[in-house]
This record gives sequence, C-alpha cells and structure tokens, in this order.
Amino acid sequence: MAHLLSTSFSVKISSRSSNRPCGQPLNQVRAALPNLFTIKTSKSPLKRLVSKGDRARKSCVVLATAAPVSKEVSANPRSGSDGSPSGSSKSQRVMVIGGDGYCGWATALHLSNKGYEVAIVDSLVRRLMDHQLGLDSLTPISSIHNRLRCWKAITGKTIELYIGDICDFEFLSETFNSFEPDAVVHFGEQRSAPYSMIDRSRAVFTQKNNVIGTLNVLFAIKEFREQCHLVKLGTMGEYGTPNIDIEEGYITIIHNGRTDTLPYPKQASSFYHLSKVHDSNNIAFTCKAWGIRATDLNQGVVYGVKTDETSMHEQLCNRLDYDGVFGTALNRFCVQAAVGHPLTVYGKGGQTRGYLDIRDTVQCVELAIANPAKPGEFRVFNQFTEQFSVNELAALVTKAGKKLGLDVQTISVPNPRVEAEEHYYNAKHTKLIELGLEPHLLSDSLLDSLLNFAIEFKDRVDTKQIMPSVSWKKIGVKPHTVPAN
Amino acid sequence: MAHLLSTSFSVKISSRSSNRPCGQPLNQVRAALPNLFTIKTSKSPLKRLVSKGDRARKSCVVLATAAPVSKEVSANPRSGSDGSPSGSSKSQRVMVIGGDGYCGWATALHLSNKGYEVAIVDSLVRRLMDHQLGLDSLTPISSIHNRLRCWKAITGKTIELYIGDICDFEFLSETFNSFEPDAVVHFGEQRSAPYSMIDRSRAVFTQKNNVIGTLNVLFAIKEFREQCHLVKLGTMGEYGTPNIDIEEGYITIIHNGRTDTLPYPKQASSFYHLSKVHDSNNIAFTCKAWGIRATDLNQGVVYGVKTDETSMHEQLCNRLDYDGVFGTALNRFCVQAAVGHPLTVYGKGGQTRGYLDIRDTVQCVELAIANPAKPGEFRVFNQFTEQFSVNELAALVTKAGKKLGLDVQTISVPNPRVEAEEHYYNAKHTKLIELGLEPHLLSDSLLDSLLNFAIEFKDRVDTKQIMPSVSWKKIGVKPHTVPAN
Repeated sequence: MAHLLSTSFSVKISSRSSNRPCGQPLNQVRAALPNLFTIKTSKSPLKRLVSKGDRARKSCVVLATAAPVSKEVSANPRSGSDGSPSGSSKSQRVMVIGGDGYCGWATALHLSNKGYEVAIVDSLVRRLMDHQLGLDSLTPISSIHNRLRCWKAITGKTIELYIGDICDFEFLSETFNSFEPDAVVHFGEQRSAPYSMIDRSRAVFTQKNNVIGTLNVLFAIKEFREQCHLVKLGTMGEYGTPNIDIEEGYITIIHNGRTDTLPYPKQASSFYHLSKVHDSNNIAFTCKAWGIRATDLNQGVVYGVKTDETSMHEQLCNRLDYDGVFGTALNRFCVQAAVGHPLTVYGKGGQTRGYLDIRDTVQCVELAIANPAKPGEFRVFNQFTEQFSVNELAALVTKAGKKLGLDVQTISVPNPRVEAEEHYYNAKHTKLIELGLEPHLLSDSLLDSLLNFAIEFKDRVDTKQIMPSVSWKKIGVKPHTVPAN
Repeated sequence: MAHLLSTSFSVKISSRSSNRPCGQPLNQVRAALPNLFTIKTSKSPLKRLVSKGDRARKSCVVLATAAPVSKEVSANPRSGSDGSPSGSSKSQRVMVIGGDGYCGWATALHLSNKGYEVAIVDSLVRRLMDHQLGLDSLTPISSIHNRLRCWKAITGKTIELYIGDICDFEFLSETFNSFEPDAVVHFGEQRSAPYSMIDRSRAVFTQKNNVIGTLNVLFAIKEFREQCHLVKLGTMGEYGTPNIDIEEGYITIIHNGRTDTLPYPKQASSFYHLSKVHDSNNIAFTCKAWGIRATDLNQGVVYGVKTDETSMHEQLCNRLDYDGVFGTALNRFCVQAAVGHPLTVYGKGGQTRGYLDIRDTVQCVELAIANPAKPGEFRVFNQFTEQFSVNELAALVTKAGKKLGLDVQTISVPNPRVEAEEHYYNAKHTKLIELGLEPHLLSDSLLDSLLNFAIEFKDRVDTKQIMPSVSWKKIGVKPHTVPAN
C-alpha cells in the first residue's frame, strides 16, 4: 500500500501559555515545538508490552499553543450556559475518530460546543487521498492544527488531538489510556464507495482499514474502557434496495410456522458498503460476547456544509466534496448548478436513498451519546430524514437554482455503478425522531446551507473532477494513477 | 504479526526425470535442486507491473523430482478408466487453495484421483501454527513435498504445488497465470474459531487473512480467468442458531404485504465465523457486479480422517486434530475415548450442529465443480449430512467405545464459548443430495473411519492439549504464548 500512510505518530495538542490569535501564521509555534516535547507517563496495562526505548519515542506528547478566548468573537449563542452536555452534570469525554473529516469535524465542534470534553483521533489520510487523486474540497479548509487553535480562540474550549492510525493498536491503546473516553464516535473509515472501486489496492485498503480499525476499537474498549459507548457510523447502503420495507437493524420473520427477530438482511453494493456490513457484524458479536454497548448509525447521504459551529470562523469551515470520487449526489449537483455544468444523473435516475442535512448528523450523534445503548446492546438507528430519487434531487436543485437566476440543465450519463435504477424503497427512520431529532428539511435548507456556498466558491471548481471516473465493472488490479493533464 | 509468515515464495513441483521411490530420503533431490532452477516466462498481463529483476527472482519454478508410478502399489480401484472427470471429455484444471490442510489435502487427492488436473496453493502456515501453539496432529503427517512425491509414485498423477500467501497478490497472479484454473476450491483460510479468539493479534490475523485472501482470489478471477468457477468453503456457523428453519443461503420474506428473497440473516459467533460471513457478502457482490460464478459451501463440522486416497499410503495420511484449538467436537471425543479421558461436553451439551464425514466433503466439492454455478450466480449449499447435539455425539461415542471394550465417561466443563446451549435447530441440506451426494452416515463410519484411528495412534496423544484453553470472554490484547511446561 505504497500510496497510503504506513506509519503513525501521536500528537496531543492542548492550549497553554500562549496568546497567538486565531489565524496568525504558525512560524513561531513551529519554531518553538522542539522545546515543548514532554514525555508522558501512561498507566496503561499495555506498558509491559512496549520496550522502554519504544515508549520514549512513540508516546511523546506535543504541547502546541493556541490563543485564549478572543473577546472580539462572540460565543455560539446555542451553547449551554453551564457548558455541560444536556442532562448530565459531569462532562462526558467523547473521542471522535476521524474528527478531521467531513462529518467528523462538524461533530467534534458540535459536541465541544455542547460541553462535552472532546478529543479528535485522526491519521489525516483523507487529506493525502485528495493529493493522490488530484482532488480538492470546494471550500478551502485549514490544517487540523489551525482549526483547533481557532476553535480554542473563539470558544475557549480545548479539543485534544491524537494523530495516528487506529489500525496501529499500540497508538490506539495510548490514546485510550491518555484520554479515557466515555464514548467513542467512530467516523475513522474510508467512506467513499467510488474510492473503494478504483483498483484492487484501494478495495483491499478500504476493507482492511475499516474492518481492522473497528476491531481495534472494540478490543481497546474491552481492555481499557469497558463501559465506553461505541457510536459507529454505518450506512443505509448496507441494506441495498430490497423489495420490502427496510427496518432499523432487525426484522421479525415468520417462517414455516416459527418466529424470530434477526439482523436485517444486507445487500451492500461496493467494497466500501461491504466493509460497513462487516463492521456491523463484528460489533454485534462483541456486544453479545463481551457486553460492549454500541449504537450503529446507518446514515443516509449527507448534504450541506454549514453547521452553527463551522460557521463561526472561516478557519473552521468544513470541507465540501463535489468530485466523482468523494462528492455525493446532492452536493455535486449544487456545484454543477453553480458553475453551469449540467446535473449528471447516473442512468435512469430512479435510484432512491435516504438523505440528511449535516446539521442533523451532528444532532443525531449527540442524541446517541446522550442516550447510550445498554451494556451488551447492539442498537441500530437509521439516520436520515427524507427519501429522494436522483431525479427528484435534480428537480429540486433546478428549482432552487432558478430562484438564484441560474439556468440549470440535466443530462443522463452512463451509470458507473451496478445498482437498480428503478426500485421500491421505503426505509423506517423513527428511532432518532423519538429521541428528539428535529430535522432540517431539504426544501428549507437547500439554498442557505448549500447552493449559496457552491456559488460563493465556484471559482475554485475544477470541472475535470465532476464526471464519474470510477466504474464498478472496470475496476482492475493495475494501480490507478490520475494523469496530470 | 510476528508469529506469522510475512513473506511468501513460489515453488512449483512437477515430476520429471527421476526414479526416486516413494518414501526414499530427500538428500539427493535437495542436492540436485540448484541445477534444476528454470525461469518461467509468463504471458500474464501483470508482466508490465513487475520489474525485470523482480520477475527473475520471484517467478522461479523449482523442478523437484518424484518417482514414476510404482508397480508395487495398486492404483485406486475407484478412479475412472479414462482418468477424466465425470461428464467431461477434457480434464478440468482445479486449483485447491489450502490444499495442505485437513479438508484441502483430502480434496486435492480426491480430485486428482478423479482425473482433474490439480494444483495445490498453500502457504503452509497451518503447520507453523501447530509449532507456535505446541500442538500436533494425532496422525503423523508428511511434508507437502513428500506427500506429492508419494502421490505421483502411487498413481502416476502429478499435483502441482505453489507455496505462497494468497494475500500477496503478485504471488497469486503468478499462480493464476501459470496454472490457468477452470475452478478454484478455496480452503485457504484460518479455519479455527478458538484460534481466532486467542488474542487480538490472532483475531485480526484471521479476519485480515481470510477477507483479503478471498478478495485477491476474486480479483484474480476477474482479471485473469473470468470463467473460472469459485468454490468457496463457508461454514454452517455463519447462520448461528436462529429460532426458525435455516435455509440454503436465501430466505423468502413476506413483510408488510410485500415479498422478497434475500440473503439469509447471519449471526456468527467468533471472529473466524464472522470472517466467513464477510467473505460470503464480498463474493455475492462480485457475482452481481462482475458476473463471477461462485458456489458457497456452508460446511458443517467435519469428522473422520480416512478417504479412499489418503488410505493408499502412510505418507498420504491426513492430519487429525484433537486439541482444544483446532480439534472439533467429534474428533476430539474419539481421541478422549481412546486414551481414557472423559468426554468433555461444553456446558449443557444441547448445542446442535450439522456434521459430515470427510469422505462427503470431498464428494461435495467434486459435485460443485462438476455442476458449476452460472456466470453471475452466487449459489449457496449447506454442506452436511446429519444433525447432532453434543450430548448425542457423546452418547454415540460411548456406545461405539463399548463395542471396542473402552469404558467411556462424560463430564461437563464450563463452556469457553458464548453460545446457546439449548436451542431450536433445523437446517435444510437438500441441494447437494439433489446433485447426487451419497452420504456416509455417522452410525456406520464412526468405528472404521475414526475411533480405530484414535486407538491406533493413542500413544501420540498429548493429554495437555485436550482441555479447552481459549475463552470467548477472556480474550485480550496481550499476545498469547503457550508455556513450555
């Protein structure tokens, strides 16, 4: 896997003794770093497995700097007055794995803003993938270090940072024993179906990274934090498109006069979606065998870029992918509309899926954390708010574009995926509503949360990234490299 | 994974210009090997990916030697007169991955005897695991090289040998392009549930090895041999113990007035069993997306050691595992009976599973190959012949032991697994019968195929290996090493 990170290292950023304002160049901080190394002593049982020399090298904690709360920037009006999570007098400690990514970043900020003690664990490999494939976020995004310094400067809240690969169990052990999480939100997976279908090595990477990473998280919880609640991001794509209603995780089957409630049958349709099915099965087993408490959030397609927290400062801006590999249908359509590119409907466009606003992603994750699964429970929520076909999405974007004076066209392109283009689809999604989810509906949020962003940043669009470049049928064993033309 | 092979190499053994009788010391052959190296030119599309130097080093074909047919040993009376597989005028080429293991070895010999052109692909890691855990087969087994020389000497039939790890795609590509299989029988997985529950690194190894190995096989078929039929060994353990009848792979569900036939819900109960579920899901997807033709044989618990072919010569003898890690219930009970150790029933003993004689394993695999799945079809057969509870097995062994003058006792030991000890179990298994399977039933075969072997080799029994040593609940992250006491 020469195209991927093979090493990891642990960096913990906290905020002490500094007055660097948010947005100031990092030169001074970088120059000071060597003097700020300290060796952290761990109480972890893993200590006995690690040689003294290795520990000294690998468990370094880097103390970087960040500014104190800036009085020039107002605090988020929605944060609780006592700074504590709703319904809890003591702050819960939440580890957000993959907290530098699209959903992870928005979630980490939201939880921090709500008063949770948050740590981000991330290998930053998602940024590397952009470099390797010649892609970029529509919105300019800051480095994770600058993001966290800015967050501290604006809100006074510290988000800890551990940089490394959770497939490296020694690294993960150190993070668990250092941060001692009460809940782990696990976004730390390769999350693109097209990426997993580029070539053999990316298919293998996706399944290895996702399955082994999750196994390591399960072992870390069992070994170090047995009461820790695992909140795992799954996908609605695990279910495929069956000809019967999709339930939330389980289905009661009457067969030959007998009855049982069993895991809902899965029919995933990419190596990525399959990796999520594998994870679900592994987690369900450990709940039963070890008493792990877990919530599997089978998320629909997320759209939007703005949350209350990422809107606070340009350095907190979230990424927005519109390319053929990481861009999802609706985000991509809005960018196409903004630059005058026809909306690219794959095949007949009858493909129907569940969708949700990223502001609801962060709500859902908080609801899951605030209402944890019981020990031994493998709880499954379908996390989306509305269903649309691709054709319906195209019509909505066309209509919204017109209001902004855009002339939006739609074309059908050959479907690069293997999927039904016309099918029954009716998926249940009541459990998160019952816990208090208040959905942002697409009709209301399309303009303010998404299309206006696409227009604002349209000069950054690389139109070569728009068309689908990955074929489900043509995937081969030859490593794929994007030409520089 | 320091305890596991991390490198692989390719050795191909064919039989030319030699007259070494079966069983003769290998010294002469070893001394001659350096002069027998030849460089094989591959027509594979992979050629362009491999540097010239690499290819010269890695695609060496070692020509070892074996005796011609010995006239002192009679040919197998059951082999066809024309030496060709039933119903086919041209020999099919079958690659048996994991062909040095328990089921793989018996299958490779059976197919060779039936006139198929057979190649064994194996990393031999199973033998390493025995060394690492301080275990050994009850029956003495020869090296794979001696086994194949003996087979050639007795039958005149050549089985090719490729030694390497299928997780190494370069190795696998070479074997595919060299052997050009019409069918691949895939036994090449870590196949012990207790092994997968020893410690974290073995759990991770099991899932990585099994899932990535199978992915590589799927990519090799797609890239190099798209008509090749994949016969994959699954396990009945994928289904768990649902409270409804177990169907063969799929179940028709009527739900809220609508109907669909979906993959049967899986509830695996170890990291090993889970890896098989992951494989099933991956294979099903590639059948749909790429048109792969695949048969998934969900095998029950295999017992017995004797097949027509392994009985021909002591150097062809199959392994028989009776230990707490690799030994399965019935094989272990017979060895316990032979040495006067009480039969160890885990918990209440109501655990019911499907069982089959190893002579039926080899029949079933041949039936699957002779009646291949269609392109794009993911066909699932439940491969067992009878159902028994653990208590029923203990009673059968007690009764059979009495006939041989053995005083057989039974004890209950704490169940090291997490499983229902009393449950409904009714699994369908008609599809292989419809293809012509003629079962060997346990009542008939217990004495001649198994218990007599246990008695014959009882002096080789290490009683320390008998009791369960792996706990589903106690598995930890610390690497497990067997003490030498």
